[in-house]
Amino acid sequence: MMNESIRVAVVGYGNIGRFAVEALMAAPDMEVAGVVEKPSFADNVKLLDAMGIPLVTSIRELQGVQIALLCTPTRSVPDIAREILSLGINTVDCYDIHGNLADLRLELAEIARANNTVAVVSAGWDPGTDSIIRTMFQFMTPSGLSYTNFGPGMSMGHTVAVRDLPGVEDALSMTMPVGAGVHRRMVYVQLQDGASFEAIKNAIKTDPYFVKDETHVFKVADVNQLIDVGHGVDMERKGVSGSTHNQMLRFSMRINNPALTAQVMVAAARASRKQMPGAYTMIQIPVIDFMHGDPDDIIRQLV
Amino acid sequence: MMNESIRVAVVGYGNIGRFAVEALMAAPDMEVAGVVEKPSFADNVKLLDAMGIPLVTSIRELQGVQIALLCTPTRSVPDIAREILSLGINTVDCYDIHGNLADLRLELAEIARANNTVAVVSAGWDPGTDSIIRTMFQFMTPSGLSYTNFGPGMSMGHTVAVRDLPGVEDALSMTMPVGAGVHRRMVYVQLQDGASFEAIKNAIKTDPYFVKDETHVFKVADVNQLIDVGHGVDMERKGVSGSTHNQMLRFSMRINNPALTAQVMVAAARASRKQMPGAYTMIQIPVIDFMHGDPDDIIRQLV
Repeated sequence: MMNESIRVAVVGYGNIGRFAVEALMAAPDMEVAGVVEKPSFADNVKLLDAMGIPLVTSIRELQGVQIALLCTPTRSVPDIAREILSLGINTVDCYDIHGNLADLRLELAEIARANNTVAVVSAGWDPGTDSIIRTMFQFMTPSGLSYTNFGPGMSMGHTVAVRDLPGVEDALSMTMPVGAGVHRRMVYVQLQDGASFEAIKNAIKTDPYFVKDETHVFKVADVNQLIDVGHGVDMERKGVSGSTHNQMLRFSMRINNPALTAQVMVAAARASRKQMPGAYTMIQIPVIDFMHGDPDDIIRQLV
Repeated sequence: MMNESIRVAVVGYGNIGRFAVEALMAAPDMEVAGVVEKPSFADNVKLLDAMGIPLVTSIRELQGVQIALLCTPTRSVPDIAREILSLGINTVDCYDIHGNLADLRLELAEIARANNTVAVVSAGWDPGTDSIIRTMFQFMTPSGLSYTNFGPGMSMGHTVAVRDLPGVEDALSMTMPVGAGVHRRMVYVQLQDGASFEAIKNAIKTDPYFVKDETHVFKVADVNQLIDVGHGVDMERKGVSGSTHNQMLRFSMRINNPALTAQVMVAAARASRKQMPGAYTMIQIPVIDFMHGDPDDIIRQLV
């Protein structure tokens, strides 16, 4: 590329962070400024070293960072976003607590405007690209019913909730779509020595995270042997355009979950450079802004 | 609604224009300023009269029009858009000639900026909402292959091409998806007295509109008995996020074609009021702008 690359830092080198580094390295217009992590495992250091990517414990140690991808646990996103926006660096997160994201955006918008930066909030696939689809479904058929069916795939939130229970060594919670937005939970637990499976099974079934769904709990020897980060979604709407009923719309995908999340974050990083200072969810940004390349060429090719 | 309604004119009262009137009447924030048509059939006049909608032959006869929906044949869109934008009225069209729409947008953008108006170009479902999906598929998986499979449904363009052939009284061309973006054409012709079916069949099969596709031609007594304005699309992409292959994305719908087109145009009319002067395809407008209502409420509900 003749143009200068956009320098992007990856904050958090877990599941999504690793895929974010890969997606940035594949992007023609970006470069990895560095990875920000707590003092870290030796194999991470070696891996990043081999790729020539600095590993630091604070984003302040990196030079010329224009955008930070926040690949940390979702609950730490608000604090980290506030701090990094205040440094004059754009942020992109995949904050996934649906009930709180609208307020988070309003709060980050003020910080971003005060620091002449841009935050893109909840830029994953749900919330994220699925939100764009849900919005389109709504304006294509203003009356009707939409359903979002997740899975089959691993639910990070439910898995973490089970892992935190006493007596659980490791766990996996799978989301199975039943249809019409109803989900079944299949939970696999690896017990600590002496823990009671019946007690843990009960604790899971009465946990607020699980109590509304049909939940099955299984004891396994090694959760690691079950891990597959594939996921899926089926979004359906049957609705009315004008006064014409029975319009049927559907979006579905089967994907590697952290790989898609990371790729969407990289696209959102690009889009952040094209917005006025402030904070945005993906439905507030034209889809063309997520693309690399000349706008007229993109219109010729894709519209 | 407490807010004043947006006054919208419908230009052209054919297939799409009728559904546009219905969609405007169903919209909480819009009102039909009037319908613009050539001196017209008595039953149209009666129908519009019964709904209290003025029928005029020039948009200049209508008061306080803010937006015009151009529901005319696609080839007349450029001229009509130029004229109406110059009157200080926003335009929305569903211009569907993919090869020309980028240049049309550039031309209308200058006229719109000079007249402090907004044009939304090619705001139907393809080009239109499908274009948004194609763009999303591309930034979710920057490498890979996309296919757009149309049908089963009536192709307006192909139908008109056959109707124009000498000896054809009426015609219908159906598009059948074969997969991977390949289509089969099923053409039904009603002949004029004395016309040769073999000659017409030959003319269709060698017409540039049909020559690339597998085309079957049938003689029927009455084309009207075959008409069904239902249509569909299946858009598929298999691609790569970062360095992760085999990401599978799919969008499909089965819809009443003119009803959806009209509903998208009404949403685009709303969006036109939220853009700076200029001309836009749908991929250049945030999807939230097509919605009626408070942005923060929409974010809370749909993101």
